[in-house]
Amino acid sequence: MKRLAQFLILCLLALGCTGKTTVSSPDKSIKLDFLLSDEGQPEYAVTVDGKPFIGPSLLGMETDSTLNLKSGFKLESSKLSEHHERWTQPWGENKSIDDNHRELEVNLSNADCKLTLRFRVFNDGLGFRYEYAISNTPSVISSEAEKSLLITDELTQFRLAGGADSWSIPGHFDSYEQEYRHLRIGEWADANTPMTFKTDDGLFGSIHEAALVDFPEMTLAGAPDGTMTARLAPDGPDNLKQKAIVPYSFMTPWRTVQIGRKAVDLINSGLILNLNEPCALEDVSWIKPAKYVGVWWGMHLGIYSWGKDHRHGATTERALQYIDFAAANNIDAVLFEGWDDNWTVAKSHHDFDFTKPAPDFDLDKVLAYAREKGVDYIIHNETSGEAAWYEKQLEKALDFDAEKDIHALKTGYAGWLLDGHYHHSQYGVKHYAKVIEEAAKRKIMVDAHEPIKETGLRRTYPNFMTREGARGMEWNAWSAGNKPSHHVTLPFTRLLSGPMDYTPGIFDIEYRSIAGHPDVQMWNNNTHSSECRVNTTLAKQIALWVVLYSPMQMASDLIENYEGHPAFQFFRDFDPDCDWSEALQGEIGQYIAVARRSGDKYFFGAITDEEGRTLQQPLSFLESGVTYTATIYADAPDADWASNPYAYAIEARTVTSADTLEVILAPGGGQAISFIPLQ
Amino acid sequence: MKRLAQFLILCLLALGCTGKTTVSSPDKSIKLDFLLSDEGQPEYAVTVDGKPFIGPSLLGMETDSTLNLKSGFKLESSKLSEHHERWTQPWGENKSIDDNHRELEVNLSNADCKLTLRFRVFNDGLGFRYEYAISNTPSVISSEAEKSLLITDELTQFRLAGGADSWSIPGHFDSYEQEYRHLRIGEWADANTPMTFKTDDGLFGSIHEAALVDFPEMTLAGAPDGTMTARLAPDGPDNLKQKAIVPYSFMTPWRTVQIGRKAVDLINSGLILNLNEPCALEDVSWIKPAKYVGVWWGMHLGIYSWGKDHRHGATTERALQYIDFAAANNIDAVLFEGWDDNWTVAKSHHDFDFTKPAPDFDLDKVLAYAREKGVDYIIHNETSGEAAWYEKQLEKALDFDAEKDIHALKTGYAGWLLDGHYHHSQYGVKHYAKVIEEAAKRKIMVDAHEPIKETGLRRTYPNFMTREGARGMEWNAWSAGNKPSHHVTLPFTRLLSGPMDYTPGIFDIEYRSIAGHPDVQMWNNNTHSSECRVNTTLAKQIALWVVLYSPMQMASDLIENYEGHPAFQFFRDFDPDCDWSEALQGEIGQYIAVARRSGDKYFFGAITDEEGRTLQQPLSFLESGVTYTATIYADAPDADWASNPYAYAIEARTVTSADTLEVILAPGGGQAISFIPLQ
Repeated sequence: MKRLAQFLILCLLALGCTGKTTVSSPDKSIKLDFLLSDEGQPEYAVTVDGKPFIGPSLLGMETDSTLNLKSGFKLESSKLSEHHERWTQPWGENKSIDDNHRELEVNLSNADCKLTLRFRVFNDGLGFRYEYAISNTPSVISSEAEKSLLITDELTQFRLAGGADSWSIPGHFDSYEQEYRHLRIGEWADANTPMTFKTDDGLFGSIHEAALVDFPEMTLAGAPDGTMTARLAPDGPDNLKQKAIVPYSFMTPWRTVQIGRKAVDLINSGLILNLNEPCALEDVSWIKPAKYVGVWWGMHLGIYSWGKDHRHGATTERALQYIDFAAANNIDAVLFEGWDDNWTVAKSHHDFDFTKPAPDFDLDKVLAYAREKGVDYIIHNETSGEAAWYEKQLEKALDFDAEKDIHALKTGYAGWLLDGHYHHSQYGVKHYAKVIEEAAKRKIMVDAHEPIKETGLRRTYPNFMTREGARGMEWNAWSAGNKPSHHVTLPFTRLLSGPMDYTPGIFDIEYRSIAGHPDVQMWNNNTHSSECRVNTTLAKQIALWVVLYSPMQMASDLIENYEGHPAFQFFRDFDPDCDWSEALQGEIGQYIAVARRSGDKYFFGAITDEEGRTLQQPLSFLESGVTYTATIYADAPDADWASNPYAYAIEARTVTSADTLEVILAPGGGQAISFIPLQ
Repeated sequence: MKRLAQFLILCLLALGCTGKTTVSSPDKSIKLDFLLSDEGQPEYAVTVDGKPFIGPSLLGMETDSTLNLKSGFKLESSKLSEHHERWTQPWGENKSIDDNHRELEVNLSNADCKLTLRFRVFNDGLGFRYEYAISNTPSVISSEAEKSLLITDELTQFRLAGGADSWSIPGHFDSYEQEYRHLRIGEWADANTPMTFKTDDGLFGSIHEAALVDFPEMTLAGAPDGTMTARLAPDGPDNLKQKAIVPYSFMTPWRTVQIGRKAVDLINSGLILNLNEPCALEDVSWIKPAKYVGVWWGMHLGIYSWGKDHRHGATTERALQYIDFAAANNIDAVLFEGWDDNWTVAKSHHDFDFTKPAPDFDLDKVLAYAREKGVDYIIHNETSGEAAWYEKQLEKALDFDAEKDIHALKTGYAGWLLDGHYHHSQYGVKHYAKVIEEAAKRKIMVDAHEPIKETGLRRTYPNFMTREGARGMEWNAWSAGNKPSHHVTLPFTRLLSGPMDYTPGIFDIEYRSIAGHPDVQMWNNNTHSSECRVNTTLAKQIALWVVLYSPMQMASDLIENYEGHPAFQFFRDFDPDCDWSEALQGEIGQYIAVARRSGDKYFFGAITDEEGRTLQQPLSFLESGVTYTATIYADAPDADWASNPYAYAIEARTVTSADTLEVILAPGGGQAISFIPLQ
């Protein structure tokens, strides 16, 4: 992996003898104190600018054994070190990331175990993890093989020092596709992470985790007094007690707290990635971001089906049309859901086979045509939740893809995991990780739907391109949909964890195209209610391509719905392989403006909630001394997501980094701008 | 030929016995009086609304013989008839045209001949022609074969009753590519037609001719007193006396005077077509309008060459790129100038051969690829003025095209006709007509450059699609170019005669793309002066596609210069096969707004001269009760042809026929709108 630069400083600092250790961020603004309670239970507290931010919060684990993993600890030693590194990744919001932190290693022991608590404090937050080693092996345990523990609870607390507003989805072990709640800390009983908050002191924060590889996901339990406690996903509904099975020596994922002065600071942070392991792949040359179109939205509208009825969407003929469209419009890749032969079998999917095309889908012909046109093919494996079955034939399926020279895979896990595990259980976490590892061996990129949440694993496995893991576009097809505030909440919450395949880009906002199809039948047998529509302006759909970062970005509408739209030019011009990004301004759930650079081009996106706004946006992020053609895709003056969603205005003008643009956003609207250097 | 409707009324009216006959337009507003002078020379005079419009104006011909074709006439008889017909054509500004006129047939005789003067008066003007039959055959003439006359002059006068402003180009027998002059009648000595004027009474008129098939073109000689007299193109510079060679019985083209209350009435008139013969072709199913791109502008910029040097533009590789671009962007056809092997031979082109591709242009491969992509091929025959030589091998060249299943031909006659004839002489007129006839036999459409002017012949030979015949785009590449007022003069002058292949659509207004080419060399060995540029805004280039009617409309820029331009969508959407057109408002040389309908889509274009304007434009031309998506391609608020030509704004909104748009045009700017019915 190419590195722009790298430097490393490690130094051992003298350790105080008070039994109390402290570590500050490199800029000294954030200070973490480690403490031991009277019962010898580890605690930590955090101040920002000298003011309490997180009050004393307990740490520890519960097991189903007699082993004590939480109290009676005494401090053996501790170590402070400092780390400065600039590392690079093959793709990302930023390809070059600075990792500047101070680390406090606290070594504890009690009668049963040794515990190292590793705290890392950055200028924009902190992370810590548990490193346990059981020393007191019960005599009953005879063999190494049996040296495993059942974790029943994690005791980690996050006790904010003051009151705070928060934005989160409910804690749910099978789905992240709920609407966001804007509640005071203490008003909710459970939440998933990233759980983002704004303190009454005006600081911003977000609690999440990093490097989740072999452990259940962490959610948060909330008490009325505001105390938040780690709540691990159980193995499954029939096995609620079991959270994790771990060896006698084990390490947890990092528990993270991002901290920012402005809401956008959370987005501009590399903290989650910095707490993951470096890239595990030797060769990453085959990994590349892509724009794509495909047969997908039609199924959600009920125009097409996944199955083999006459409405079958993924036919050879349609595939060739989509490939032509992609080749003609500078779109990199195509996806055809329902290409395979698995869609008419009963719900017991034990004959799922991801190597058999549907009778009316000539995969080899489609692949040959795509290759001839220079278009990449994204294959689709929908497991319908059959993770265990999928694992059984995973290598066969991936070998098939590799043989066909297919290097991108969209996976799906719709519905419950059929083998009794929660999607987000330790079992699920391991399953998703296994798919990524097996895919990497075969040079296959993965876009996972109904996934485990991202925790920065893309640093270690950069073939894990993107995933769903939030309420995406399809909800607009068969529900009240996603409110205008949803899109301005995602960047400050879900997307702090990593890229999301939201699949924006619907131009037929109110599904007029359905009228042209006589026998619309929705997959869930619903009928379209009058409330079924996309709750944005058309211009906002374009801006979402910039705002909602994904290295695989879909123009998700039926290609015929782009006909006659000059605004589609933005999708032609947009380069998903960005080198640099910055969230420029924004408030959680209200509005946001983002800029990205890909090569010498810049792309800007701004969106708002139900409220129309005018943003003053200096272009100082552009390269100085260069004149750019700015092509501005804006809401028309009379646009409104509810009453006039289609009205947009495009303007081409020349600008430099010295200019400031007035960015006018309609209610529920957005604006996208491409900046291309003049020849 | 399919007819929407047709009805015909003929009636004989009683003839006055005063020796003075009169005919009025069906609506009685225009009245034409026929008179005989004291010398028995025919005259005509015209009143509009009872007020003199054209004062008594002489008629007649001069020959080099003793035969008298101008005076000593006495009235034998005259006949009045009335004609009402609705006829249709395969393509045109309007596919259905009403021909409502009254005809006065005046039968005269003198010692040498019989002369029938046929006057037709329409509600929007008039036309008349001479029908001579020599009765007094000199005894020296022994055979029918020798029964021919040499016409030395036509005496037709156009004496406006009052003063008038006028817009015209100088009378020139080889070229129409001069700048327009805005002069008072009487201020110019010679002019070509259409010669458009506005009387001091506020009426508009235009003098031209119709059905020019076997006669020299008519230009106008202007006297200081305002009298305009027909001035026929001589055979050539060395044969100035000979104007026409005609048989003893001959008929002239129609001499026409269009009359309008508003400037745009001249454009909305079908008079010129009504005075041409019906379609002579049985099958017109193969004739269809087209949008095209091609290798052409690069030569004028000096980036490419027509020849075989390393800058050769028409290479196989580039042709395939253009075909891909056309297929990808809903462009119907491609043109590659310099495809053939004729470009390095000496100026004596007697080895011109239009069946030999250049060594680096694989015509068969290009044709096969175009066919595979559903793109039509326009072949190019540049004669460099070698009309006689071209005629010698015309059938061979056209047979070659037909064998290759090529159905569109662009001809060129750059430079003087090398055989001593003027382009616009009777010889030239016959040559162009012969090419059209031979092409029609082989189902080949023709786009003639350096042509004879159009006189409505497209009605009789609808394979004569379009032509140059005015100062077109290429003048911008190597001169001060065409002033902003040029484009708002053309529709009221040159385009009254018929379609023009102006080749608009240059987006790289200031030729920035040249910078990317190291060895620019212009065909005329000029270098680009700082004044070389396109003198419009970018939005005006789009609007020209609507305003300057041509059934073959070229997106004339290098295809790479369209990259990144959402405005190119208008060219994708535009349908050149229009059914109906109307010039909505405008003033000669100042501004114009035009609407056209193609199927259920409407297209609107408005352009202005150096002056910025705001037009109020009711959309009452749209079908009532239909809601349209109007995509508006406008100048940006700060656009200006001179200082900020690239700034444009596109807006999409829904409209109905009840709406009125405020059309804001920048100085030197324009606006185009597509109206597409909502599903």
